[in-house]
Amino acid sequence: MSLDQLARTAYNDDHEAFRQTVRQFMQKEIAPHAAEWAENGIVPKALWPKAGELGLLCPTVPEEYGGLGLDFGYNAIVDEESAYYGRATTGFSLQSDIVTNYLVSYGSEEQKKEWLPKMVSGEVVTAIAMTEPGTGSDLQGMRTTAKKDGNHYVINGSKTYITNGQNADLILVCVKTDTEIEPKWKGVSIVLVEANREGFKRGRNLDKIGQDEADTSELFFEDVRVPITNCLGEEGKGFIYLMSELPQERLSIAVSAQAAAQRAFDDTVEFTRDRKAFGKPVLDFQNTRFVLADLKAKLQVGWAHLDWALARHLKRELTPEEGAAAKLWHTELQWEVMDKCLQLHGGAGYMNEYPIARSWRAARVTRIFGGTNEIMKELIGRKL
Amino acid sequence: MSLDQLARTAYNDDHEAFRQTVRQFMQKEIAPHAAEWAENGIVPKALWPKAGELGLLCPTVPEEYGGLGLDFGYNAIVDEESAYYGRATTGFSLQSDIVTNYLVSYGSEEQKKEWLPKMVSGEVVTAIAMTEPGTGSDLQGMRTTAKKDGNHYVINGSKTYITNGQNADLILVCVKTDTEIEPKWKGVSIVLVEANREGFKRGRNLDKIGQDEADTSELFFEDVRVPITNCLGEEGKGFIYLMSELPQERLSIAVSAQAAAQRAFDDTVEFTRDRKAFGKPVLDFQNTRFVLADLKAKLQVGWAHLDWALARHLKRELTPEEGAAAKLWHTELQWEVMDKCLQLHGGAGYMNEYPIARSWRAARVTRIFGGTNEIMKELIGRKL
Amino acid sequence: MSLDQLARTAYNDDHEAFRQTVRQFMQKEIAPHAAEWAENGIVPKALWPKAGELGLLCPTVPEEYGGLGLDFGYNAIVDEESAYYGRATTGFSLQSDIVTNYLVSYGSEEQKKEWLPKMVSGEVVTAIAMTEPGTGSDLQGMRTTAKKDGNHYVINGSKTYITNGQNADLILVCVKTDTEIEPKWKGVSIVLVEANREGFKRGRNLDKIGQDEADTSELFFEDVRVPITNCLGEEGKGFIYLMSELPQERLSIAVSAQAAAQRAFDDTVEFTRDRKAFGKPVLDFQNTRFVLADLKAKLQVGWAHLDWALARHLKRELTPEEGAAAKLWHTELQWEVMDKCLQLHGGAGYMNEYPIARSWRAARVTRIFGGTNEIMKELIGRKL
Amino acid sequence: MSLDQLARTAYNDDHEAFRQTVRQFMQKEIAPHAAEWAENGIVPKALWPKAGELGLLCPTVPEEYGGLGLDFGYNAIVDEESAYYGRATTGFSLQSDIVTNYLVSYGSEEQKKEWLPKMVSGEVVTAIAMTEPGTGSDLQGMRTTAKKDGNHYVINGSKTYITNGQNADLILVCVKTDTEIEPKWKGVSIVLVEANREGFKRGRNLDKIGQDEADTSELFFEDVRVPITNCLGEEGKGFIYLMSELPQERLSIAVSAQAAAQRAFDDTVEFTRDRKAFGKPVLDFQNTRFVLADLKAKLQVGWAHLDWALARHLKRELTPEEGAAAKLWHTELQWEVMDKCLQLHGGAGYMNEYPIARSWRAARVTRIFGGTNEIMKELIGRKL
Repeated sequence: MSLDQLARTAYNDDHEAFRQTVRQFMQKEIAPHAAEWAENGIVPKALWPKAGELGLLCPTVPEEYGGLGLDFGYNAIVDEESAYYGRATTGFSLQSDIVTNYLVSYGSEEQKKEWLPKMVSGEVVTAIAMTEPGTGSDLQGMRTTAKKDGNHYVINGSKTYITNGQNADLILVCVKTDTEIEPKWKGVSIVLVEANREGFKRGRNLDKIGQDEADTSELFFEDVRVPITNCLGEEGKGFIYLMSELPQERLSIAVSAQAAAQRAFDDTVEFTRDRKAFGKPVLDFQNTRFVLADLKAKLQVGWAHLDWALARHLKRELTPEEGAAAKLWHTELQWEVMDKCLQLHGGAGYMNEYPIARSWRAARVTRIFGGTNEIMKELIGRKL
Repeated sequence: MSLDQLARTAYNDDHEAFRQTVRQFMQKEIAPHAAEWAENGIVPKALWPKAGELGLLCPTVPEEYGGLGLDFGYNAIVDEESAYYGRATTGFSLQSDIVTNYLVSYGSEEQKKEWLPKMVSGEVVTAIAMTEPGTGSDLQGMRTTAKKDGNHYVINGSKTYITNGQNADLILVCVKTDTEIEPKWKGVSIVLVEANREGFKRGRNLDKIGQDEADTSELFFEDVRVPITNCLGEEGKGFIYLMSELPQERLSIAVSAQAAAQRAFDDTVEFTRDRKAFGKPVLDFQNTRFVLADLKAKLQVGWAHLDWALARHLKRELTPEEGAAAKLWHTELQWEVMDKCLQLHGGAGYMNEYPIARSWRAARVTRIFGGTNEIMKELIGRKL
Repeated sequence: MSLDQLARTAYNDDHEAFRQTVRQFMQKEIAPHAAEWAENGIVPKALWPKAGELGLLCPTVPEEYGGLGLDFGYNAIVDEESAYYGRATTGFSLQSDIVTNYLVSYGSEEQKKEWLPKMVSGEVVTAIAMTEPGTGSDLQGMRTTAKKDGNHYVINGSKTYITNGQNADLILVCVKTDTEIEPKWKGVSIVLVEANREGFKRGRNLDKIGQDEADTSELFFEDVRVPITNCLGEEGKGFIYLMSELPQERLSIAVSAQAAAQRAFDDTVEFTRDRKAFGKPVLDFQNTRFVLADLKAKLQVGWAHLDWALARHLKRELTPEEGAAAKLWHTELQWEVMDKCLQLHGGAGYMNEYPIARSWRAARVTRIFGGTNEIMKELIGRKL
Repeated sequence: MSLDQLARTAYNDDHEAFRQTVRQFMQKEIAPHAAEWAENGIVPKALWPKAGELGLLCPTVPEEYGGLGLDFGYNAIVDEESAYYGRATTGFSLQSDIVTNYLVSYGSEEQKKEWLPKMVSGEVVTAIAMTEPGTGSDLQGMRTTAKKDGNHYVINGSKTYITNGQNADLILVCVKTDTEIEPKWKGVSIVLVEANREGFKRGRNLDKIGQDEADTSELFFEDVRVPITNCLGEEGKGFIYLMSELPQERLSIAVSAQAAAQRAFDDTVEFTRDRKAFGKPVLDFQNTRFVLADLKAKLQVGWAHLDWALARHLKRELTPEEGAAAKLWHTELQWEVMDKCLQLHGGAGYMNEYPIARSWRAARVTRIFGGTNEIMKELIGRKL
């Protein structure tokens, strides 16, 4: 089994040609090193330019800013191949699927010219800093402030759970530029902070349940001065910008979740075919077959939905609620697949040397990040 | 909310124009009478010609046999509108989605000429008799025999759970024409039995949990003589014919299940918006919103998958395993939606006067008929 | 299998001797007539004195009021045997487990002397009228009023979902004796209304999903005059009385749910052992065994918990939250058992002639009545 | 909340007094070091004599062999307190709940005299080696052999997933003393192998998903010679011995699972009470309350069942199927509690610095070890 054998509808021949390039990269440059990077808690920064060279980073960046000007389908392919063949959390999707859009949509000409080409080439690694210790998904409750001092902002606060936190050269920091205004969301802005600014400090590379190779980190800002031209778009519009980019972020999570689930499933079919118990392959037990058949049905349903959602997103028709539904459903599916597949591995499933163990650990966060699945239900429910 | 507001991809403008005709029929000719028919345990036979006149029956029958020569998308639309607006089990889909194909694909020229035009017009109601008392979904274990006597078969046996059992004018009876042959499935044939044949007797119109208006019945065959020209296609190929038609039958069940689930969901959103508890609408409780949001996400996923499956079926690419997966998944979804929506109705949900109660009762059989969902898992699992 | 073979801890030898009497009654006087009563939508009133004669009604009534002065364990045994062997909803438990306590605990000496002996003998059938159309479990929102006029109340309002609604001779009606007072619950009182009072009218015997033999009904009160001595206990304390009796009511539901689940399970083991599919007993398929094994484990857990809860209740230590948890858990278990067992019956499970179909329909209401399971969660959750 | 506040029935005052001793040990000697031991992948051997001194090891060993001659309730208390307050997998329960019984029940007088006193004192750490690479729970398929050579056995083979693998001084090794005999289980024996025997080699301390502090290991046996007097009980009876001890092993797992679940629940109530989201405590959201209320109900049910099972076991009445049901049910509950509680922690739940993350990882193996839960279903199902 491989991703090619699925009956997909979202992609054209160019997409599929690109897929082969991506796959080779994942098989050659990522998969063999995943265990080592997991040990190190970080992906080497040198990986980024290699990916950039092959066009794997930020494919939607317009040509004028050094990009290929492609559609989000190319992003999705990188996500799928990464989850299925790479099996490491590189942080690419954060840069390609999320940060890119902020700069393309709301960045000033100067910001675009400065950053986008380097993001495409992999010379620059980016991060976006939203969550703060103790506030979770509640953006309006954030406490990091950016106070104006002449033509500078002075930023103070701390952030946590920041993807690419150790590797990042540029961080899009969500701040309160106005702490008094009501409604509160009107005080939120996004400010670009270069990692070499004085007062910026990286905190711990967090010890997580999984995705060990991802340098999810704490970040600290102590009187960090940046010019006000570093504000992304308009001051006070940060919340609106964040909301506008969520459907794509959530779709991106859904894509990765589905592909990771398919990989775990395919591995488990193979494992249970090879592994014997009580004198016959584990796959020959009706319970094994029933569990896997049920998952296969769900994966089929998932791919169909994913292609529908991708098609809608490419036409800019995917609503925030639909994006939330995609994130919710595919990450729940991912978890169900992971956990049932681990169980079918028996004792082996609990050993980190087996891929299912790492994939299972990595998967647990997808129901939490990008807005918990409870937040997804809240978002969908509000529109009923 | 209505079926029109969904972001569908399977249909073209002609399909959608047809949908409006169907909807009016469902709203005018079916829905207002559903309760009465449920009381009677049968849909009046006079309904069939009315449906036939509007082109609702057997839309795929070629023009040369009195049909419209349309694609299965038209069948699906009848199924959807019937489930969403009609809310009665008419037996149309058995005739249009299942029996039609047997005749079109395997019938002799004489059989086609005799029966198809009347099936299209609604003059003739058909049934297919597979299940026998005590054998369930196990076709190879059937005990009804057709013994050759000159140029006639003499049929003996009994069948049960036969849709359209009381109304049927023509029954496609699955029989053993050879009880010795190994493998056993080579002894299965399908024979057309007209309801006026001597020795044919309708048994009880069965008392079911739901779908009260459906005349699901027992049928008895005691020395019923039919000419051997009544054999459908070749003798001994019945099992193969049955297998070949299953993907469409299962897709048809999936379509109805999805539409019925959507209706229950839409009704429940409305109910919980109107009904107050502890001083506020039931919908305003977070639990209600979360339950409904989760179901809405699943329904979104379901429609996307259904359209994918329909598109594949129209291209004749839907595999038996994919059809089984569709039947499995959509009927499980239907049940989850029904049961959770009933619960959100509180005490009202238990009262047959509320549509949710009837829909819930009707839905319970879809995980069982057309092959139990356990059989679906078996079918999918075998191919792993 | 039978209820005797379980490793119970809640009962002593006297309880178990009583059980045999109850069982014979259930097997002889109830089970054979259940189908007929279901057809009629009501249990014959003549059944009550028969049950009374054998001591099956209201066993906890003190001897001075014509009772046996036994503990609640005897009630529980009647509930268990009724659910397991009787398989009909007689309304006994409403009278024995719920109404009795209101009179014993809060009734005046006159009320006790008048009603308790007849409740024990079965001469009088009782009901308690809480729910109103449109208000569900929200007692404080009730709209039935009892206005004082001299030494009478004048009652106006309507009630619905009232167990024993057609058979009842005496109804404990929850009313607002004060519609202004804050907090609102201080306006709630319970008034005894004899069924022969002018202005009292029975409404429809409701058409339900199941429990067809239970005469769950609407009741109407139009200027019904009753002496103020008919007030149960003190005016304005109705809400407190209701709250105080809930743990026993909920435990009673839990008992019946557990026993009904055990019966469905035992029946299904037998059914799948007898029924063949694909040449072997259905029980021989691993899926069947796994489903049943899982349910058996849960039933084991359930009986242990039930005995723990009964023992606590006999010592008056069962808290409202524990009672709510019992109602929640056992009715959810009951439903899981019913639905999975029905599925293992295949097509037969959908036919009302099979006991599983009736039990399954009957079971659906237990997650709703006695306070929906959502209310149970609310009650437990508030105390966290 | 603490374990003392539960309404338990299995223990007497002596048990509860013992509990306080155990608790202090867990709070003082275990909990503060858990993180460090997890880092090291092993619990220091010096911990064992400390536990032994306080009577925490092998409480059921008769006084004549240096023990306290207590009942299994004392073991259960150590398990509970360890799971709730210690929060580290020490390996005590393997020695106390499992290995002890083999020696007491089947050991020769010499074996008992040599080993039991040291097991009680903590001077000796034991292990039992069943599972082999590639065979899982299938004891009859094992390939480790013990061939007789004079009055010695020569043992060859390898074992994996062995608890206490690095610390063990004495290993009870399951071997085939006869590889020809049919039925195969008659060839299984248990042989005591001292860790200082030549040819015995410890393999990797396995890298697991959780229980990082447990030295679960591979063991290798290469021409290991042990005297035939090291055979436990009779040759060829190993399989019978193993089966006879399983109910206690499984009950032991159930006890730990239930206590660990209670701890995760209590922690989560506290966490959600403290943590704010969108301006109010997370616990104040209805969804949070409902999730926790449902879990609380299940925990209540679980404790009741556990006490029932403990009482039965103390009377030697717990059947193998009941033990299997306990293991199945409590470990499934543990998992449900862990996963839902982790989710309620949001992003924090994914961070290993939070106890929930470690408990969740540790919990994943309990559905697998001691016989997978699929095996439990098989065992229960066979007896239907």
